[in-house]
Amino acid sequence: MKKLINSPETVLDDALSGMAAAHPGLRVDTEARVITRASGTRPGKVAVVSGGGSGHEPLHGGFVGAGMLAAACPGEVFTSPVPDQIVAAARAADAGAGVLFVVKNYTGDVLNFQVAAELAEDDGIRVETVLVDDDVAVRDSTHTAGRRGTGATLFVEKIAGALAEQGADLAAVAKAARAVNGASRSFAVALTSCTTPAAGRPGFELPDDEIEVGVGIHGEPGRRREKMRPAREIVATALDAVLEDQPLAAGDETLVLVNGLGGTPLIELYVVYKEVADALAERGVRIARRLVGNYVTSLDMAGVSLTLCRTDTDMLALWDAPVDTPALHWG
Amino acid sequence: MKKLINSPETVLDDALSGMAAAHPGLRVDTEARVITRASGTRPGKVAVVSGGGSGHEPLHGGFVGAGMLAAACPGEVFTSPVPDQIVAAARAADAGAGVLFVVKNYTGDVLNFQVAAELAEDDGIRVETVLVDDDVAVRDSTHTAGRRGTGATLFVEKIAGALAEQGADLAAVAKAARAVNGASRSFAVALTSCTTPAAGRPGFELPDDEIEVGVGIHGEPGRRREKMRPAREIVATALDAVLEDQPLAAGDETLVLVNGLGGTPLIELYVVYKEVADALAERGVRIARRLVGNYVTSLDMAGVSLTLCRTDTDMLALWDAPVDTPALHWG
Repeated sequence: MKKLINSPETVLDDALSGMAAAHPGLRVDTEARVITRASGTRPGKVAVVSGGGSGHEPLHGGFVGAGMLAAACPGEVFTSPVPDQIVAAARAADAGAGVLFVVKNYTGDVLNFQVAAELAEDDGIRVETVLVDDDVAVRDSTHTAGRRGTGATLFVEKIAGALAEQGADLAAVAKAARAVNGASRSFAVALTSCTTPAAGRPGFELPDDEIEVGVGIHGEPGRRREKMRPAREIVATALDAVLEDQPLAAGDETLVLVNGLGGTPLIELYVVYKEVADALAERGVRIARRLVGNYVTSLDMAGVSLTLCRTDTDMLALWDAPVDTPALHWG
Repeated sequence: MKKLINSPETVLDDALSGMAAAHPGLRVDTEARVITRASGTRPGKVAVVSGGGSGHEPLHGGFVGAGMLAAACPGEVFTSPVPDQIVAAARAADAGAGVLFVVKNYTGDVLNFQVAAELAEDDGIRVETVLVDDDVAVRDSTHTAGRRGTGATLFVEKIAGALAEQGADLAAVAKAARAVNGASRSFAVALTSCTTPAAGRPGFELPDDEIEVGVGIHGEPGRRREKMRPAREIVATALDAVLEDQPLAAGDETLVLVNGLGGTPLIELYVVYKEVADALAERGVRIARRLVGNYVTSLDMAGVSLTLCRTDTDMLALWDAPVDTPALHWG
């Protein structure tokens, strides 16, 4: 294993220290492993809080900042944060209007956030939870009962974060977050495996001429192995899977995320985006907004995920609202 | 070879079509292979123009936009743009105040930009050129006489672009660009090779337990091969090389770029940044601003480059000036 780390045991603490040093706009509690805005949540605003295993950077810590997350709590690589840590994040982020937990649907995360929600409520913090389960590839998987959560997490965090910033109450922010998740579908394809620092070897084996179709963000198995194919055909497979689950008609508007899994060069992601744009144009579906880049990664895995979110005017206005985080910045 | 492309022959055209579709703020001439701002260069402003081989994305196309480049002209992967293409970029970008070519010091780029400068001047466009040659690893290399150009390109393009936006004349913008290059030094370490679509196999072989110390952005050989080591030691090697060439004293201020070469996860780049920050703090050198991410890449190469630029108040003000491009956005 060749990784730019000091040791598998210190990778998360070292990376958090690096984030603290790199981003003056963040406050990183390296002991509690909680990342908040240096300026804190504005009084009276709902705090959108997320977390999960590390190894998916910039998710979630890179999305902390005005207009998006109030706090993030990263667990060890591919491992859920523990309940105490999640409660610490809720405490640090709550500004009196309650906390929305954004939880990707993996069994460990779901359980730990549930325990944390109860503990936080014992502390007098109001908590709502939204489960993100956008991955249409498989029904159940290694780490999950039901669908896995993936790229839609970014959409949920951005849109819920914008609504919280505008002063909406907890119920409204939770409702919007659930609507975004409900409108989103994802599908991923891996060209290579990925290697966690602790394991030191690839999580699965993939022959030199094969791809994993429907892979999960921890390298969980997808639907099948296939021979490598041109980008256009891979995009067609991913898009068919997404649209089979949630049809989009001519005239519908969608957010698109073409997301690199960590080891794929940006030039290839633009090739993929061209194919997505062409295929949606053929169907008369309008891409209202899009992101192309590495946002929800799986360490060094080569591959791509595609996420579509059927959108409307209100959702778009929240998408366009200003955001100021390490990984997303506009407005 | 597994890459998300349709064919090695179409990768650049497909990627440019993808960029065109993804970024409404850019105008992409896919025939001439020139990327400009959709709004054009403001009349009377100097146009900062850059280009070079593709495969280093987001460099240069991702840096086109207000406050940075007026145009970029990407060649085939790891191949210089041709003179006609560079002239087309100059023509498209010139707004009457002349054009600054930012050229990384590789033989093909230097020659083609020189021919293009003469052709553009025949057309009545005033041209100045700044050569970027910040890589201290080796004196000459496979593609270069003299030092190679690498991470400092981002600093030059940002700071020259900001000065151009403020209305400085061509001589002043060129002078500032040369000053940034003169104050910058870089050093890179590769953990893996990279694979161009045309070659279809890694450009060099690197054993599972070795790193290439001082690698170039096309995989050119560095100073030596070494056994893999902890991040702290790799950073010490890179930082020593940079500071040996340009010493920084306690109290000096520097810009820092911790740049992923394409295949390295962001979590590792933060580990590297922590080590850089610690080592500079020990020496009393102040990090005025910093970037951590994938900006000047080498396709799927795993590894990192470190760039330092000794800075002053004027340079910092230009660094902080607003920028609105696909890859850099603030202010």
